[in-house]
Amino acid sequence: MAEIATRRKARGGGRAGAAARRGAAVIEQMPWNPPVITDAPIEPLSPEGVAAIHDGAMRILEEIGVQFLNEEALEILREAGCQIDGDIVRMGRDFVMEMVGKAPSQFTLTPRNPNRALTVGGGHILFGNVSSPPNYWDMEIGTKVPGTREKCANLLKLTQYFNCIHFAGGYPVEPVDLHASVRHLDVLFDKLTLTDKVMHAYSLGKERVEDVMEMVRIASGLTHEEFEATPRMYTNINSTSPLKHDQPMIDGCLRLVRRGQAVVVTPFTLAGAMAPVTMAGAVAQSIAEALCAIALFQYVAPGAPCAIGTFTSNVDMKSGAPAFGTPEYMRATQMTGQLARFYGLPMRSSGVCAANVPDGQAMWETSNSLWAAVQSGSNMVYHAAGWLEGGLIASPEKFVMDCEILQQIQRYMDPSLTATSGEDIALDAIKSVGNDGHFFGIQHTQDRYSTAFYQPFLSDWKNYEGWEAAGAIWTPERAHRMFKDIINSFEAPPMDVAIREELADFVARRKSEGGAPTDF
Amino acid sequence: MAEIATRRKARGGGRAGAAARRGAAVIEQMPWNPPVITDAPIEPLSPEGVAAIHDGAMRILEEIGVQFLNEEALEILREAGCQIDGDIVRMGRDFVMEMVGKAPSQFTLTPRNPNRALTVGGGHILFGNVSSPPNYWDMEIGTKVPGTREKCANLLKLTQYFNCIHFAGGYPVEPVDLHASVRHLDVLFDKLTLTDKVMHAYSLGKERVEDVMEMVRIASGLTHEEFEATPRMYTNINSTSPLKHDQPMIDGCLRLVRRGQAVVVTPFTLAGAMAPVTMAGAVAQSIAEALCAIALFQYVAPGAPCAIGTFTSNVDMKSGAPAFGTPEYMRATQMTGQLARFYGLPMRSSGVCAANVPDGQAMWETSNSLWAAVQSGSNMVYHAAGWLEGGLIASPEKFVMDCEILQQIQRYMDPSLTATSGEDIALDAIKSVGNDGHFFGIQHTQDRYSTAFYQPFLSDWKNYEGWEAAGAIWTPERAHRMFKDIINSFEAPPMDVAIREELADFVARRKSEGGAPTDF
Repeated sequence: MAEIATRRKARGGGRAGAAARRGAAVIEQMPWNPPVITDAPIEPLSPEGVAAIHDGAMRILEEIGVQFLNEEALEILREAGCQIDGDIVRMGRDFVMEMVGKAPSQFTLTPRNPNRALTVGGGHILFGNVSSPPNYWDMEIGTKVPGTREKCANLLKLTQYFNCIHFAGGYPVEPVDLHASVRHLDVLFDKLTLTDKVMHAYSLGKERVEDVMEMVRIASGLTHEEFEATPRMYTNINSTSPLKHDQPMIDGCLRLVRRGQAVVVTPFTLAGAMAPVTMAGAVAQSIAEALCAIALFQYVAPGAPCAIGTFTSNVDMKSGAPAFGTPEYMRATQMTGQLARFYGLPMRSSGVCAANVPDGQAMWETSNSLWAAVQSGSNMVYHAAGWLEGGLIASPEKFVMDCEILQQIQRYMDPSLTATSGEDIALDAIKSVGNDGHFFGIQHTQDRYSTAFYQPFLSDWKNYEGWEAAGAIWTPERAHRMFKDIINSFEAPPMDVAIREELADFVARRKSEGGAPTDF
Repeated sequence: MAEIATRRKARGGGRAGAAARRGAAVIEQMPWNPPVITDAPIEPLSPEGVAAIHDGAMRILEEIGVQFLNEEALEILREAGCQIDGDIVRMGRDFVMEMVGKAPSQFTLTPRNPNRALTVGGGHILFGNVSSPPNYWDMEIGTKVPGTREKCANLLKLTQYFNCIHFAGGYPVEPVDLHASVRHLDVLFDKLTLTDKVMHAYSLGKERVEDVMEMVRIASGLTHEEFEATPRMYTNINSTSPLKHDQPMIDGCLRLVRRGQAVVVTPFTLAGAMAPVTMAGAVAQSIAEALCAIALFQYVAPGAPCAIGTFTSNVDMKSGAPAFGTPEYMRATQMTGQLARFYGLPMRSSGVCAANVPDGQAMWETSNSLWAAVQSGSNMVYHAAGWLEGGLIASPEKFVMDCEILQQIQRYMDPSLTATSGEDIALDAIKSVGNDGHFFGIQHTQDRYSTAFYQPFLSDWKNYEGWEAAGAIWTPERAHRMFKDIINSFEAPPMDVAIREELADFVARRKSEGGAPTDF
């Protein structure tokens, strides 16, 4: 083994050395290779159960209706034949199903680096960074502090650095040191220059949405026609549960789908608070809230890329606070997956926890939610790295720790692990070792040792004595050091100078115009 | 919500108060209720893949053979028609399959408290404590120290205390302060008096096995005939991979099956070390090693309760050290589950990690392995609580943390979470709340709030400010405090005074006889 280890080190060191000279190899991570789920999904519902939740969702839309606080949507849905009472929209299941049937079951998202293009749907599972926490925590600061542009940029660097993060979701922390009127301009400039992955726009008023679409177009060096020819980006909206869609979110989606971009509709239905205390009821309500919006978008832009999101969890009955990564959360995610397949829609779920620091609780809650994402057949996994305190805190240590889990999930899906060819069964190898040898030195092992097993970047597999001699460093502290090393050696992905200047000019012009209104 | 919380507290406090007066309610835990898996297992292998691994295992047994360092076994297998060359046994697949076909697919284990009887097989999944680490770690000591009888007893108290721990496996830590010749006597006395759950015997020489069977019989107040009438306990043996069974392990199993007790055969096949570097090869070898022993036991005692164990993982190719809870480990466990169902045998797997302290790494590795146990259809999960450093350290904090995960797994399997009756879909509740209310106060919620959601005992769901005000306690420290509280208020399960005296007399007599030889 020592011999193998030495040889491996020599080779690995060579690669790592070269990469380090490029300043990009703090760790040896897995290559960019968005995974495909090979397992059958976990399906807790019988076909009758799926039918019951579907029927419940349809009856919600037919009998109760959803409030649309958006005049344009009301006009469109009236024209489409829905029943409109004030701002309450009731729609028949035939209409809903006809519209939802127009949505593609799979679509692509192509960012400024076309090598980072993503397929959303089918067996593809994609991970994105934590999005939208107002606060930040790291080991050095040691307490919860407001987000800033610098902290946001550092988390964007992690988003770019880790190959297991496939898309750049919302702001990984809200930079509250930037005025809300211009925040989107500065952060999108940072996002587009620090990462080359798929971008997201917040649907928070037409100016923001239009600005972000324009910046994504500029960053990709596209004409307007080219931008609209295929999905380049997406937005994610939440309904205001129960049963309400607000003005800017619907407006943002309409703007995106009309230009061929993608939308994800993610109701936030906390069972026992904004949804029934029963999980099937909370899921039915979530499905209803999502489908009525998707029906609207399909009526406006048939075939527009849409995904159905789930954010169904439960509250802590002691405090009313949201709980995450619970058994109920896992089941709700799996049930929503069954319904998403029933509707033929790609699905989004999340990596979540209620823990306040990156400790054991954070990891079991996050593991629960990430495995539920895998088991449910989720296609996009929001908040997959960096989330703490129910989404109120972003943490770089948590980000690095989550990426270790994500890499393992990606490796878990590698078909080589469960291959059963003659060479995999390895009867000759077993025969050659017999009853008394070991497999370290034999050719069958030599031929495969460098790729046979997952190699973690953060897990410490030394024995206790070795770990103690190396300083007895617990996981979050190891993650903190790695975070600092990555930030300190970060190199932004290449961008044409002219494009960068065009982006900067756009930001400057829009700032001079006052940015976006802040009375949303 | 405040109103609900207060009422709940009042009621819960009443129950908890009564229990606390009995000294048993440091936490509000889930009741004793061994769970049943409701999910279809994850099956990474196609039917052809199962056939390929089965064929590999059969060819290992037919063409290579397994070394049995046990004269009695060699004699029996010779009589059974196997081909014996020295101590190498080759057996044909017809014989293996005929013998394995005699093993029951399900059996019961009935300990001294019949209310703790367990069903092994089918959808039942049972969790046991960490077994056999030579060392101990806790937050107070702060480093790795050898196990002692007191530390072992404390971990046995946790084993008894937690309802999500269903059986008492091997010694939760090796009490190296007890001489090896009498260790089994003292620890079994502690185990039998501190717990009333299913017992295990180490197969480490005939004296130990016979002593433990006798002590279990005495503790249950049974005649010899009653003891043998149904399985009361079990042993677990490991093969000496590759392809070897040693003398005392086989001897112990023969002694147990002849008296109607259960055996678990768990090869320890580390891919790349004692087994092929390919996971299918490591699994095939593990299956072969297990089946040839089970075939022997079925020949000797047709219908004897046997389970097939898996301990297939991979080594760290940097150091040769075993790695646990890896993607490869998960897949090997799932593949073994498919083969166990193919053979109609109950299966055992484990909760494992390589981490040295109860931190984030420990939790993601353990979560991976426990979910793999669930997904594989495992019936017994060894080391499900308390394991660190690849099984070299037992930790009470890790024990308490793991029990939080186990409770969540148990809750996850509760069919109520995915029920879809009309009351679950809750259309009337959704209608009553409409587009502007919330679900906190409505009758549908009131009727269900106390049981609707999992309530953790260790997870801290307070927001950051509440958590900070309560001392900013990270998970392992919370677990440590809970451990101390549980130990300090522990009450042993009732035992008849005469039985306790009989047990003590037996221990004294066997000690005076010198205990067991230590030259095994």
